[in-house]
Amino acid sequence: LNAIIVTIGDELLQGLTLDTNSSWIGKNLLSYNINVTKTLSIGDTSNQIVFEIKNILQEEFDFLFITGGLGPTHDDITKSAFVRIMNDELVFDENYYLELKQKFSKNSIKMLPMHRTQALLLKKGDIIPNDFGTALGTHYSIDNKHIFIMPGVPTEMKTMVSKYIIPKYIKSDPKNMIITIKTIGITESHLSEKLNFLMKKYSTECKFSFLPSYKGVSFRITQTKDNSNLLMLKDQFINQIQPYAYGLNDDTLELIVSLKLTKLNLTISTAESCTGGLLSKLLTDIPGSSNYFLGGISPYNNKLKEIMLDIPKSSLEKHGAVSNDTALKMAKNIRLKTGSDIGISTTGIAGPGGGNKSKPIGLVYIGLSTKNQDYVKKYNLNFNRNINRIVTTYKALNMIRLLINENNFES
Amino acid sequence: LNAIIVTIGDELLQGLTLDTNSSWIGKNLLSYNINVTKTLSIGDTSNQIVFEIKNILQEEFDFLFITGGLGPTHDDITKSAFVRIMNDELVFDENYYLELKQKFSKNSIKMLPMHRTQALLLKKGDIIPNDFGTALGTHYSIDNKHIFIMPGVPTEMKTMVSKYIIPKYIKSDPKNMIITIKTIGITESHLSEKLNFLMKKYSTECKFSFLPSYKGVSFRITQTKDNSNLLMLKDQFINQIQPYAYGLNDDTLELIVSLKLTKLNLTISTAESCTGGLLSKLLTDIPGSSNYFLGGISPYNNKLKEIMLDIPKSSLEKHGAVSNDTALKMAKNIRLKTGSDIGISTTGIAGPGGGNKSKPIGLVYIGLSTKNQDYVKKYNLNFNRNINRIVTTYKALNMIRLLINENNFES
Repeated sequence: LNAIIVTIGDELLQGLTLDTNSSWIGKNLLSYNINVTKTLSIGDTSNQIVFEIKNILQEEFDFLFITGGLGPTHDDITKSAFVRIMNDELVFDENYYLELKQKFSKNSIKMLPMHRTQALLLKKGDIIPNDFGTALGTHYSIDNKHIFIMPGVPTEMKTMVSKYIIPKYIKSDPKNMIITIKTIGITESHLSEKLNFLMKKYSTECKFSFLPSYKGVSFRITQTKDNSNLLMLKDQFINQIQPYAYGLNDDTLELIVSLKLTKLNLTISTAESCTGGLLSKLLTDIPGSSNYFLGGISPYNNKLKEIMLDIPKSSLEKHGAVSNDTALKMAKNIRLKTGSDIGISTTGIAGPGGGNKSKPIGLVYIGLSTKNQDYVKKYNLNFNRNINRIVTTYKALNMIRLLINENNFES
Repeated sequence: LNAIIVTIGDELLQGLTLDTNSSWIGKNLLSYNINVTKTLSIGDTSNQIVFEIKNILQEEFDFLFITGGLGPTHDDITKSAFVRIMNDELVFDENYYLELKQKFSKNSIKMLPMHRTQALLLKKGDIIPNDFGTALGTHYSIDNKHIFIMPGVPTEMKTMVSKYIIPKYIKSDPKNMIITIKTIGITESHLSEKLNFLMKKYSTECKFSFLPSYKGVSFRITQTKDNSNLLMLKDQFINQIQPYAYGLNDDTLELIVSLKLTKLNLTISTAESCTGGLLSKLLTDIPGSSNYFLGGISPYNNKLKEIMLDIPKSSLEKHGAVSNDTALKMAKNIRLKTGSDIGISTTGIAGPGGGNKSKPIGLVYIGLSTKNQDYVKKYNLNFNRNINRIVTTYKALNMIRLLINENNFES
């Protein structure tokens, strides 16, 4: 089965908004064995929308997903374009208008005359509910082809797809034709070297690809024959690259760390200097994080390292804030202060300023402290401020993962 | 002048890689007054590349930018597709091959047989140099239309565009034909209402568009006639929507807040519960943040609110952690503890769990404390955990902005 995706909006063409909708839809359809053959972004111009959609309707596809241009302002013209494309008409839905009125009044937002257009619905189409916004979606069915028109706001679109479109129009169960193994702490070429003989062995039934990013390298196995058992096969690959593989598919490192902390009933606290709160932010991204995350401190100012973390002024003056010694004390003291099982710290020079010959930009120390051991890892990173902070944070998360993996906490 | 962008690669359609190239090119062309009319992503299939590009060649455009599929591996087929599209042929460039050989040996990387294909060049095209990678770009010129074929790796592509394509083929100076006014704290429709008469007044010389996001609504003015003075015109729009407009174009709220704090020589500290460090992360994203950011605490656990922020257990028990009272005490105590000019706090129920009838998911309190005043704002948000946290953080940043705007610190 094939799909085409069209995203509508001048902001996409002018680089003001990144089109994340196409990518999200493509990824989700793939798990139902539906291939996206192309994606198209076009502007808020009625003639162009009509021209491009009419062209696509001549092509081969099973599903056409369209997002954007359903809002109440003057540049939202997707519905009127579809009046032309489908020889349809817009009808005013009194019931939905009343529903909207109640929604606005409940949220104490003033309803404006322009909001009336949100109750104008395409007559020949079916409604797709919108759980979060005011713009309803529309579904057309022509010659066994399905067309879905959805708002461009990602959360609204995603809920429409997952909750209404997939169960009603796609129906099939998701298939595991693709598995992504997520790794951290190893480069793409070294990963490739370790996996080379396995890739050769299975080259007739699988395709392989590597996707490096600042958060680690993803390795993807795509099954090309239906008869191979991907779930069993993947374990051979994972075994070959331990301890670098931390999860599968949509797993994030912060999720894996949080699951392990929860499972072992461990608590953690953070003391962040160069990462400024990013580590505690990621550790609390996960629902239920209060089970393991006790708290964090970002003592940016040196005086606060003294006051809030009891790091002696003399030691800060001797070793400097960016040092093995400070990282170690930060990790240990936040652990003792909060009573957590694990204390972790970051201190470094993220850039663009602040570096010198002995402590260059990119120099980072990450400290880890438990009841049984305290240690520090030192890195020399080579990115910009933003990426240096992200890389440091993921290295810290990986240190937590490895610490727990090594069964340091099982008795 | 119009442009079309085509990005090539299965990973774009399968949601493994986000297409950031189209967005970057679109944004950069706009400053040279070149409009991107559409962008297209297609897979690594020779027939499809030939079909789509041949179709586009029939359309109207001045520039066609193509990225991706120029690497040395088996799925890089853009060059061979262009042999078919242009009736061209691939010729082996001995000099470039020697150059490559030296590059590899200089970087101590083993050159593989497959790298030979990087020296196969399209005969009818001109070469576009690649400062970072091995894949050269190609330029074709047909009937005053320019076609650029570039690698998909963003740094390689960006340097080709900025350093070689724009100076050689676009030539013109960048124009300020577009201004984006960034706002926060007002909805798209209310902004539209406030600006309606101005939009009507200038409708013959400008185009207007709104871009809502969780971080606020951007309002964009695009000049359609060369004679209007956009820089002066924008002030009329800004005056109409105070105090919601906080910046222009690429300004972020955290940048604006940091600039104001720095300018007024003010210091700030944070006490975050529901946002878990995101606010301190954003405040320290800006280089030089140590000038204004003293430090932050994320006392996730209630006991830490007592220990680290001196909030009495009795008061926590009486009002709850998510309350006006706790938010106020958190803001005041972090300010006093760190000695900062401004203390700001967040506490709320981000979801998906933890809500009840009297304190539902999405209930958030943001506290602000200065020497002269302490106050709390309460919000009922309606998103998922992640977005609730982002929205809370931006509302907090906006409270800081408004506090400083009101000249509370000027004597």
